[in-house]
Amino acid sequence: MQTGVVVNPKFVQNSSAKTVISIDAMGGDHGVGVVIDGMVRAANTLPEINFILHGREQEISPLLSKHKILKERVQVRHADDVVKMDDRPSRIMRHGKSTSMWSSLESVRQKEASVAVSCGNTGALMAIAMIRLRKAQGVKRPAIAILWPSLNPQGFNVMLDVGADIRADAQDLKVFALMGASYARNGLGLEQPRIGLLNVGTEDHKGKPELHEANDIIAADATTNKFKYVGFVEGGDIPSDKVDVIVTDGFTGNVALKTGEGTANLIGFRMREAFTRNIFSKISALLALRNLRYLRHKIDPRQVNGGVFLGLNGTVIKSHGAADATGVEAAIRLAFQLSQLGFNEKLAARVAYGLQNSQDNHETDDDPIVGSDK
Amino acid sequence: MQTGVVVNPKFVQNSSAKTVISIDAMGGDHGVGVVIDGMVRAANTLPEINFILHGREQEISPLLSKHKILKERVQVRHADDVVKMDDRPSRIMRHGKSTSMWSSLESVRQKEASVAVSCGNTGALMAIAMIRLRKAQGVKRPAIAILWPSLNPQGFNVMLDVGADIRADAQDLKVFALMGASYARNGLGLEQPRIGLLNVGTEDHKGKPELHEANDIIAADATTNKFKYVGFVEGGDIPSDKVDVIVTDGFTGNVALKTGEGTANLIGFRMREAFTRNIFSKISALLALRNLRYLRHKIDPRQVNGGVFLGLNGTVIKSHGAADATGVEAAIRLAFQLSQLGFNEKLAARVAYGLQNSQDNHETDDDPIVGSDK
Repeated sequence: MQTGVVVNPKFVQNSSAKTVISIDAMGGDHGVGVVIDGMVRAANTLPEINFILHGREQEISPLLSKHKILKERVQVRHADDVVKMDDRPSRIMRHGKSTSMWSSLESVRQKEASVAVSCGNTGALMAIAMIRLRKAQGVKRPAIAILWPSLNPQGFNVMLDVGADIRADAQDLKVFALMGASYARNGLGLEQPRIGLLNVGTEDHKGKPELHEANDIIAADATTNKFKYVGFVEGGDIPSDKVDVIVTDGFTGNVALKTGEGTANLIGFRMREAFTRNIFSKISALLALRNLRYLRHKIDPRQVNGGVFLGLNGTVIKSHGAADATGVEAAIRLAFQLSQLGFNEKLAARVAYGLQNSQDNHETDDDPIVGSDK
Repeated sequence: MQTGVVVNPKFVQNSSAKTVISIDAMGGDHGVGVVIDGMVRAANTLPEINFILHGREQEISPLLSKHKILKERVQVRHADDVVKMDDRPSRIMRHGKSTSMWSSLESVRQKEASVAVSCGNTGALMAIAMIRLRKAQGVKRPAIAILWPSLNPQGFNVMLDVGADIRADAQDLKVFALMGASYARNGLGLEQPRIGLLNVGTEDHKGKPELHEANDIIAADATTNKFKYVGFVEGGDIPSDKVDVIVTDGFTGNVALKTGEGTANLIGFRMREAFTRNIFSKISALLALRNLRYLRHKIDPRQVNGGVFLGLNGTVIKSHGAADATGVEAAIRLAFQLSQLGFNEKLAARVAYGLQNSQDNHETDDDPIVGSDK
């Protein structure tokens, strides 16, 4: 193991009363600089945040020294190696101990930090998280949840799984519903989130066998688990106000997420084209600038950068590989918020309770645990 | 069987030299009027088009009589019943003989019309088409192909399957590639379309086993079948210029299609909001009107309304259930274009050739058929 500690004594003094976030400095598309810029932005408005930053010390230190605000708030952990975007997860699981990604998760495992953030290879991050943090009780398949811009008052819906695993059986989908509800309750402040199961139609006879089974078992336990179950939803409902949490397997969820991003990119391209065709359209674009900025703000995917790994003993946030400083800042803010809420413990309690008190579990417990999940 | 012919003698005289399209008047969300309005629009610019219109004569005739242009160009076939949006396909297969949908496909089966167009229940339409028109040789699973707005010079990409069947094995995906290439060649005029297989990543090790197998067999026969194979593509590539045809199973394709539509709707909603927030934004919207119209035209899904059923002995076009007159017109124009091209015969020949000359077929034929598919 090639990781080493670069001690910052002031950090040690400060960190006990602070929220410590573990950051993988390497592996994003835009390098260390963007990650540090994102940390600066977050630190500017979150005085309670401290960082452990993992990566090549010789690349990190010169950049870090430029930012006074980070001076006493960052501890650097040197790691020689970097997980590349095209590295196979199986290789990293065997030979990845000296990478910054591995080191960043180790800080969560050791409880030095409450949440880890990485812009690197998703598959490798999940693979290391599974072996180092291990799965929470009752969770066979962890999931990655994201926030999707929507027409709901809270502005976003939760969708999971968007790519932790390409498969999910009915029981996995039920656990996703429990975890997604907990995330919506804590992350979006929804007391009774509405859960929908993604399918190719809303009629009961449509779709795959595992979806019919999941439809039944999720519906059976909705009240016990303090969510509303709206049944099957379609792709068009993902950004709608009919539902707060969309449950699906990681293959379908990943395709849907990227299709949504691709569609938004296409429309953005056509919009720039429409407003720059000729001198008249450019003038009207200037006049419409406030409107266009408002629009961009409303649908800017960078504002909600960060897929959360759910179902592990520790919280891990995967930032978009192409994230800029605004995107990295958003991922760090999310990490901070979830840490402050004690989210991971609440989620674990919620899943354990949901599985224990399931209709398809004979050892039901009639005495509900109270207040575990808000 | 409760369908009957309402003879229009002038139609019979005219139709021999004309392209006859069979239209299901019933079953769309907006009723018969919208379908007839779409026919009027198409007839105005396509002097070579005639129609056989299937549905309740008492509803159709009063509306039809208002449009002089349709007078000698439409034959009405009375059908008592209508397939409803929530009818199960299995029920319609057994008891649907008296419906306008069944009747509209019967016209294609009898070769009175070259293409059928319906706004009704997709599952029922495919089910009837399978038993009445039957599958083309070598096709185990027919597919529904749509045109997706894209950054390519041709403005659209082909995607299939978007919902004929929720499953597809590797061999089905190969047939989809052959059919999609033929559609792109004939419908979009692309000599050597680029085919991509939808997956959750572009690396070879990602995704489901059937995708790896399909990846190998599609790549092996690309040159023989006159297309380029670009390998795995992701959801974000669907509207891109990296690929012309996206191949996937009907479950994933349907979710992706509806997610794309939902995302476009969300952005449209936010855009209207941005340009109507207050009096200043409304004024700037007026000034930007030409730009906004240009944008709408570029991404208007009604311009490409029409999922084409591929792999049957006859061409069937499924129009969106919620299509307005512009949408119905687009579906009819597509039907006309495919009929003029003799598309269905070309596609059948292409699939037969592709399967016969496959690397995994021992009875290969070294003498390629020429000119069957443009």
